[in-house]
Amino acid sequence: MIHFADRLAEAVRAKRTPLCVGIDPRWESLPAALRREYGDGTLAGVTRAYEAFGLRVLDLVSPLVAVVKPQSAFFEACGPDGMRALQTTLRNARERGLLTILDGKRNDISSTASAYADAAFDGTLVDGKRLPVWDADALTVNPYLGEDAVEPFLEAARRSGRGLFVLLRTSNPGAGRFQGLDCRGKPLYRHIAEAISEWGRSNRGSCGFGDVGAVVGATHATEVAQLRQLIPDVWFLVPGFGAQGGSAADVASAFRANRLGAIINSSRGITFPFMPDDPQWEQAILKAARETIAKLAEVVPAS
Amino acid sequence: MIHFADRLAEAVRAKRTPLCVGIDPRWESLPAALRREYGDGTLAGVTRAYEAFGLRVLDLVSPLVAVVKPQSAFFEACGPDGMRALQTTLRNARERGLLTILDGKRNDISSTASAYADAAFDGTLVDGKRLPVWDADALTVNPYLGEDAVEPFLEAARRSGRGLFVLLRTSNPGAGRFQGLDCRGKPLYRHIAEAISEWGRSNRGSCGFGDVGAVVGATHATEVAQLRQLIPDVWFLVPGFGAQGGSAADVASAFRANRLGAIINSSRGITFPFMPDDPQWEQAILKAARETIAKLAEVVPAS
Repeated sequence: MIHFADRLAEAVRAKRTPLCVGIDPRWESLPAALRREYGDGTLAGVTRAYEAFGLRVLDLVSPLVAVVKPQSAFFEACGPDGMRALQTTLRNARERGLLTILDGKRNDISSTASAYADAAFDGTLVDGKRLPVWDADALTVNPYLGEDAVEPFLEAARRSGRGLFVLLRTSNPGAGRFQGLDCRGKPLYRHIAEAISEWGRSNRGSCGFGDVGAVVGATHATEVAQLRQLIPDVWFLVPGFGAQGGSAADVASAFRANRLGAIINSSRGITFPFMPDDPQWEQAILKAARETIAKLAEVVPAS
Repeated sequence: MIHFADRLAEAVRAKRTPLCVGIDPRWESLPAALRREYGDGTLAGVTRAYEAFGLRVLDLVSPLVAVVKPQSAFFEACGPDGMRALQTTLRNARERGLLTILDGKRNDISSTASAYADAAFDGTLVDGKRLPVWDADALTVNPYLGEDAVEPFLEAARRSGRGLFVLLRTSNPGAGRFQGLDCRGKPLYRHIAEAISEWGRSNRGSCGFGDVGAVVGATHATEVAQLRQLIPDVWFLVPGFGAQGGSAADVASAFRANRLGAIINSSRGITFPFMPDDPQWEQAILKAARETIAKLAEVVPAS
């Protein structure tokens, strides 16, 4: 069983880019052709379009990137059918050799947290057998409930060489209200940062990083640099690049000197760089992916 | 459109108990008869058993209580089929006139948060039409991402007279690590408490409570009392009663002098008070519900 951090390091090195493509399907942004083909005014129709679009995106980007991040919310918004499309998308990504981060921001306590975690990773235990559900390589987790609420997620991840990305500093304008509160002389998020590093320290991979990463928004460049110094052994998942306003220069400080340590997510910027009625939407996706990779390579050569 | 807080007040008054029954199906705890009938080693089989069990629990408790709280994690652990059982359970509860709290602890930012919220409440918007997904009366929400991340949930809730319960002080032993951190002279959770009260203040019902409630664990009795004083206009959802160690006396302080202001959740204590091979499991559920209601009535008469 290869350590999650090492799998991530190896995948990013092999594809020579830290870019992660976020799969966030939105009905109103989908190519009009797909909406016409699948749309029938039901969530089942929307789901079929999401699935077709997601698989096409994976087709296009899997030669270029190492990691994809499906956003649970948009699939869940289509109900049970949507969750089946999420499953199909994750499975297809895995079959293409991509690493998958399920962006669910899940959180709960004790056996309830275990239920989420088992489903995310090696499967739900039924009569002594694990039945796979999402089978993702990593899951985003919200830390507000405390250490013993993160523990069941970590335990499940470690059983099968998966990882966590714990929300640390999110990219929304109002993130500071609680995350930035001064607690005993430093902002709350620095307490969380230290906890994240501590949780991962007991299980570092040979690349030097632990299996507990942190979500650190690209919209707070100075903080990214400070956090990189504070917790050098923690992988960062950096959202907010592109559509949310983070620039390539902003994310440069998320990396270690060895060019590892961060994966940079772009969702809409890669998957929706076209107007819905543009018949060349596939080319637009390819172009956006290539340009984003080039832009990132300028500030952080991946090899 | 009746205000969420007023619907809650009315429901609790009508049933003369603040008890909320948590629907947290667990395979290993289900009656052996149901496991034999539905179990076939697949998650689809588990799901059918969860659905049958959930509907039977609703049958038994709906004459006694006003509110039920399905736990999303246990349904999600069965994948897309499980989510269909969650949908069926919520629909059945609604048809019986019960108020439903979907315990999902969801959280995200901007349009992603809206996707969760639309699904939870009045439905996902497709070509100008709202298509219902979970259609719950309330959703639990994690506040760590900040005010602008709670806002989309609140906006969706207000469109259709629903409510939120924001995680404030959870019932797990390690909840204090972050929630209890001293931030500018008071614990983090008091900052969150003030924010919750502020969010609900702009939309109070005629009962005097807002539509943003708080999750306050029964395992911290002194804090419950302090919080009740600090934010008198906020409904409390109090988990951790029974199985997690909170006593009836512990929860008494969650109520206002008018006997409103808190709903007390019990999950395992009501739904699994039997050994799996006990053929009298339905009577055991009824007995547990009646006893819990009586225990609560001693400290907080509901009328």
